[in-house]
Amino acid sequence: MSKTIFYHAGCPVCISAEHDIINLIGKDNVEVVHIGENRSRIEEAEKLGVKSVPALVTPNGNVLHINFGALIADVKG
Amino acid sequence: MSKTIFYHAGCPVCISAEHDIINLIGKDNVEVVHIGENRSRIEEAEKLGVKSVPALVTPNGNVLHINFGALIADVKG
Repeated sequence: MSKTIFYHAGCPVCISAEHDIINLIGKDNVEVVHIGENRSRIEEAEKLGVKSVPALVTPNGNVLHINFGALIADVKG
Repeated sequence: MSKTIFYHAGCPVCISAEHDIINLIGKDNVEVVHIGENRSRIEEAEKLGVKSVPALVTPNGNVLHINFGALIADVKG
């Protein structure tokens, strides 16, 4: 993979972090994925190592879990 | 404040996150502060709301706690 992906679930912590990340990295440099609305991408996030949201997956595959919004398990319900 | 500051304490989680953040934001756009070595800046970090390291403080003052390395309390010892 060669892009940065920000996974979130729409929670207030997520939205706040999303704004911060976009301001820091630039809107065109990060794909924002709402796994609460786009549930087909939950499995993808899990495979990448995302344990909670909001999380940023870097181009080299590292996962940065930011603050704490919700566990992936809770998003899956 | 108008700059981004990355606070860390030299732990492996911190160093890994530091590399990721520098790759994402650019070395010239973030000040890296090692509060384990530069202990005079621990109080500054606490006042900004940093609870654990690594953490990124954005230009608008938001604190993004990234993954989890160490509590500020533990760095203070």
